[in-house]
Amino acid sequence: MIKVGIIGATGYAGAELVRILSRHKEVEIKWYGSRSYVDEKYASVYRNMFEIVEDQCLDDNIEELADQVDVIFTATPQGFLGGILNEELLSKTKFIDLSADYRIKDVDIYEQWYKIKHQSPQLIKEAVYGLCEINRNQVTKATRLIANPGCYTTCSILTAYPLVKEGLIDPATLIVDAKSGTSGAGRGAKVPNLFCEVNENMKAYGVASHRHTPEIEEQLGYAAGSKVTINFTPHLVPMNRGILATEYASLVRKADGSLPTEQEIRAVYEKYYKDEYFVRVLPKGECPETKWVEGSNYVDINFVIDERTGRIIMMGALDNLVKGAAGQAVQNMNLMFGFDEKEGLELVPCFP
Amino acid sequence: MIKVGIIGATGYAGAELVRILSRHKEVEIKWYGSRSYVDEKYASVYRNMFEIVEDQCLDDNIEELADQVDVIFTATPQGFLGGILNEELLSKTKFIDLSADYRIKDVDIYEQWYKIKHQSPQLIKEAVYGLCEINRNQVTKATRLIANPGCYTTCSILTAYPLVKEGLIDPATLIVDAKSGTSGAGRGAKVPNLFCEVNENMKAYGVASHRHTPEIEEQLGYAAGSKVTINFTPHLVPMNRGILATEYASLVRKADGSLPTEQEIRAVYEKYYKDEYFVRVLPKGECPETKWVEGSNYVDINFVIDERTGRIIMMGALDNLVKGAAGQAVQNMNLMFGFDEKEGLELVPCFP
Amino acid sequence: MIKVGIIGATGYAGAELVRILSRHKEVEIKWYGSRSYVDEKYASVYRNMFEIVEDQCLDDNIEELADQVDVIFTATPQGFLGGILNEELLSKTKFIDLSADYRIKDVDIYEQWYKIKHQSPQLIKEAVYGLCEINRNQVTKATRLIANPGCYTTCSILTAYPLVKEGLIDPATLIVDAKSGTSGAGRGAKVPNLFCEVNENMKAYGVASHRHTPEIEEQLGYAAGSKVTINFTPHLVPMNRGILATEYASLVRKADGSLPTEQEIRAVYEKYYKDEYFVRVLPKGECPETKWVEGSNYVDINFVIDERTGRIIMMGALDNLVKGAAGQAVQNMNLMFGFDEKEGLELVPCFP
Amino acid sequence: MIKVGIIGATGYAGAELVRILSRHKEVEIKWYGSRSYVDEKYASVYRNMFEIVEDQCLDDNIEELADQVDVIFTATPQGFLGGILNEELLSKTKFIDLSADYRIKDVDIYEQWYKIKHQSPQLIKEAVYGLCEINRNQVTKATRLIANPGCYTTCSILTAYPLVKEGLIDPATLIVDAKSGTSGAGRGAKVPNLFCEVNENMKAYGVASHRHTPEIEEQLGYAAGSKVTINFTPHLVPMNRGILATEYASLVRKADGSLPTEQEIRAVYEKYYKDEYFVRVLPKGECPETKWVEGSNYVDINFVIDERTGRIIMMGALDNLVKGAAGQAVQNMNLMFGFDEKEGLELVPCFP
Repeated sequence: MIKVGIIGATGYAGAELVRILSRHKEVEIKWYGSRSYVDEKYASVYRNMFEIVEDQCLDDNIEELADQVDVIFTATPQGFLGGILNEELLSKTKFIDLSADYRIKDVDIYEQWYKIKHQSPQLIKEAVYGLCEINRNQVTKATRLIANPGCYTTCSILTAYPLVKEGLIDPATLIVDAKSGTSGAGRGAKVPNLFCEVNENMKAYGVASHRHTPEIEEQLGYAAGSKVTINFTPHLVPMNRGILATEYASLVRKADGSLPTEQEIRAVYEKYYKDEYFVRVLPKGECPETKWVEGSNYVDINFVIDERTGRIIMMGALDNLVKGAAGQAVQNMNLMFGFDEKEGLELVPCFP
Repeated sequence: MIKVGIIGATGYAGAELVRILSRHKEVEIKWYGSRSYVDEKYASVYRNMFEIVEDQCLDDNIEELADQVDVIFTATPQGFLGGILNEELLSKTKFIDLSADYRIKDVDIYEQWYKIKHQSPQLIKEAVYGLCEINRNQVTKATRLIANPGCYTTCSILTAYPLVKEGLIDPATLIVDAKSGTSGAGRGAKVPNLFCEVNENMKAYGVASHRHTPEIEEQLGYAAGSKVTINFTPHLVPMNRGILATEYASLVRKADGSLPTEQEIRAVYEKYYKDEYFVRVLPKGECPETKWVEGSNYVDINFVIDERTGRIIMMGALDNLVKGAAGQAVQNMNLMFGFDEKEGLELVPCFP
Repeated sequence: MIKVGIIGATGYAGAELVRILSRHKEVEIKWYGSRSYVDEKYASVYRNMFEIVEDQCLDDNIEELADQVDVIFTATPQGFLGGILNEELLSKTKFIDLSADYRIKDVDIYEQWYKIKHQSPQLIKEAVYGLCEINRNQVTKATRLIANPGCYTTCSILTAYPLVKEGLIDPATLIVDAKSGTSGAGRGAKVPNLFCEVNENMKAYGVASHRHTPEIEEQLGYAAGSKVTINFTPHLVPMNRGILATEYASLVRKADGSLPTEQEIRAVYEKYYKDEYFVRVLPKGECPETKWVEGSNYVDINFVIDERTGRIIMMGALDNLVKGAAGQAVQNMNLMFGFDEKEGLELVPCFP
Repeated sequence: MIKVGIIGATGYAGAELVRILSRHKEVEIKWYGSRSYVDEKYASVYRNMFEIVEDQCLDDNIEELADQVDVIFTATPQGFLGGILNEELLSKTKFIDLSADYRIKDVDIYEQWYKIKHQSPQLIKEAVYGLCEINRNQVTKATRLIANPGCYTTCSILTAYPLVKEGLIDPATLIVDAKSGTSGAGRGAKVPNLFCEVNENMKAYGVASHRHTPEIEEQLGYAAGSKVTINFTPHLVPMNRGILATEYASLVRKADGSLPTEQEIRAVYEKYYKDEYFVRVLPKGECPETKWVEGSNYVDINFVIDERTGRIIMMGALDNLVKGAAGQAVQNMNLMFGFDEKEGLELVPCFP
């Protein structure tokens, strides 16, 4: 039984951490950090937890918290952890950061896309990018700091990764058109996120400028072995949860000019994901749907080859709050502490 | 480890049984019955179960099924189980019926509201009405047949039960205005249940004629010790899951003409529900919301006294597919077989 | 062609005024008042009006505005108009107030329910309650000030009015269970109105304390000829527009103890609404649905008699932003200025 | 005043024709054709039309209908009009076909994508493709037969047309990722279109095989002056109305290797759409949203240049039932009969 603290426990990702960890057999939550609701009962802020969580919200006293717990999850705005993390804290406890502060290795790119001066760039190198299906070994060995991947990025990367890694698609042609439920926008009170503004509406946003772009590019660049530049367009969908990524790329033709076959592509996906519990490559002909993974840590993936254009259309679906945030953070924790990777995460998707 | 069969496994309530039972430690599902999808993989019908359930759907061969399993759940249309159940089947296995066939003790009332001739009225008497919080003893002792309560009825009854039982409200004044998500209408392909017909829409239906009315009346009649006649009005809400019951009744004044106080009413709710894991009486001032119980077996209850009119407004919220159907059925199974009543049901509500 | 000013033009009701008035043949909007968006293009705040409205938002300079226009619509928070209106302003222009400031004749009741000290109680008496179907003569004669009814109240009153007026129901038994789309909550950025909080959720609020209660009671009291006290419970529904009121009351039995018949009740509704363009009494058996009136100025009404309980269930549906706010305000303006009552309001409901 | 008949008046597109034409000053609807609801009152099928339309639905007697009206709208399944249309009918009345039967000039491509044998291929050549903003002259001159464009196609084509026509993008790189509300799936009772299946869900469908692909390719091919092959991926969104097309293409670099500028691109859009009432090119930085055009005949368009990849992201939004179906059909009728092109179509988008 380890002790856990959550900073940002009353945001949507933080609340999802509470939901998952409250049923995790190896964990006890000791600290529900929330600047906005200090001293209020957690269950009065998230009433789904009524009679499940009895604690009150606490302020973000990171020093005190670090002394008390074995791991701290930070579900906080960009720049928060980067601004306070240091050797002393890291010597006391482990950190799993759900923000972007330690995800991007090139601090210039981070500062350019996030418009934030990084306060602890010296720690970036140590941070392990916690995309378990790709970096499991490093995560398992990580002793102090995990950079938990973004929601769009987890979906976008896992969907294309095997084909990039094996050189089956041309990364320069990659276009990711992603659609997200509204919980991705957080619980801040803003007019564009009001029910009446989102319901019965569909829009793109952050076109050619969304911050998850360089994160996808960096990780796919490692897979490709060279710099990758892509188009990434997020869209807001009138639903609570779920991300669907529709990805387009030109297939690399064989020497004889022919395209890779359905079977060949499928074999590559199998190679990477056959033993991955949380990645489900669907049978031919079935398109991933966000509802089929809702509430779970699964990513559903499939693809269609378009012979006419020589492109492949890859599709991935996940729950942005689970595999795209809190579930993946718990998966990282499980690996770091040597627990069963699935502990607390055998959540069956809820339908309808 | 007991063996379980489900008839009607591809309806929404059946699918919820599969979701819950797939993580139940004492249970193995042996039979996924579905007339409409015989020989199809269950996971191709409900793709949330992909890589979780490997079985195919089977026809409704009740004789064969009864030989193989310890309990059969029937999530079937009204009249189905009533038409086939007999002593021989009951001697082989237990039945938990999610339809209304054995809920109403007075067969005339059943036939009048359901417009169905009951084919096995001799079995009604034996059936135990499986509202665990009220009939726990009988359920625990039930050896053969449970009539699992309806979704509206579970919500409506639990919300008013303590006050009816203790004589604090006048049952003749009881009005239940209930609102349900659309999964209550089932998975049948009908125009009124199409997305475009339900979305951005709100309506009453079955006004003064809905079949759950006599079921509520019978059970509250037992509590009141006399015949109860109520108004019950269901409404269709553009959401997947959830029932909210808003109930109105005149408070019985004390000898001095005063109304019962907030504390007195609350004490009565405490008396009945303090130790009930799945019933949460909310703190004063908080109204139940369906979202806070979604995906869980909880019922959230609260009330407001209106001094001006002398009425009490009681409110209850549950997930119609869990506490209103499959969750309650599993709770009944747990009691019948002597398992921990909460096994498989410690589902944390999913928000948002 | 008259000149019109709108204060509060960037709230949802104000925007609906703009939508309707932009196609009104007798009207030119001269002033788009909005404190929050002064000097911004109106069409950049409400982009549906792009290339339709070219004006910029102006501050709330009521003195200047009163000199320029023939009528001012105030779609403003409670207390705003009450705090600034005076004889001088009323001598210059007409006012149609969409807030509650002049709706309730008894200033004590207003102050008690709204927790606001009324700043101009001497003007309340003059104000005409602008429920056109009931007060058409007074509205037509109104020279200076209309109190435009609330959304819940318009629906609740019109649904029950004929039966109260004709003494067919006992007003002391009246219970109004109302359900509203989320636009009724306004465009303010508040957590409870975020998409993720409202979607897939249903709740009651303001139970036994909602401010529209005394407004309904006052108007139905005029109809009954005596003081009326009711229960009114509003609910929030995950949809943008629409109010559905489900109303319960005991029918007054005839001398022989029998209930009024379906035909008798229907005849009373016909008597009051047969010639009312905006009130549609539906054929027997059809329940009003909010979607069927969306975007229009219609109220759809119907009822069911429950012989078992002696109660009648009345149902009414309208679009809270049209007949419940802006549409009714325009209808009032049309009557005040002698225009065709339907001008600008022959909006066909949009389905689906 | 012309006389109009509608075949398929009880589908969603047919009902939208009724909504629009019921307020059109030059038109009288004489025939509400609906095989499924013969002899039922139209207003009992579409209750929004209660007290607006008094007629009953009639069978599809095309011979009789052709004698009675000046123009017939066919909002019917693929193959219907193709199977019955002939010279005799065309000699009696005009046809505006909302199906795909006469949209594609190459009958082989039609038969290949639609899996239907075309029964009247000799009439295809005469049919005018009724995309008014592009083919206004031909539509104006059309005497007998208009092929009304598809919903996805109208949006996809108008969004990219100016840049294809002017050679600013490479058509071989064009990828259209489109998102549609559920009314596009029609009113047929099918499980995948049930509320509970669509709500809280997002999916692609018809990947690399959707029938609107060749229609887009043909029309953009005319603009490009050469054969165009694209990727087109439709998605189903949990909303009633609206299509959003997000389109990606490589910009054609200038001789000096530089990309076209924002101003240059904008000038090209202006050139084509400046005088188009129903096309609104938004100010820089504003992304089209479906809600801002809902219920109207507008298409909102904008674009973002991505200097990093050399691609342009074009976005277009329309209401699939209006500009994507019925509204455009009425626009075509207006042009054919010499009415004001905007008559009946000055519908202000309804927000929220």
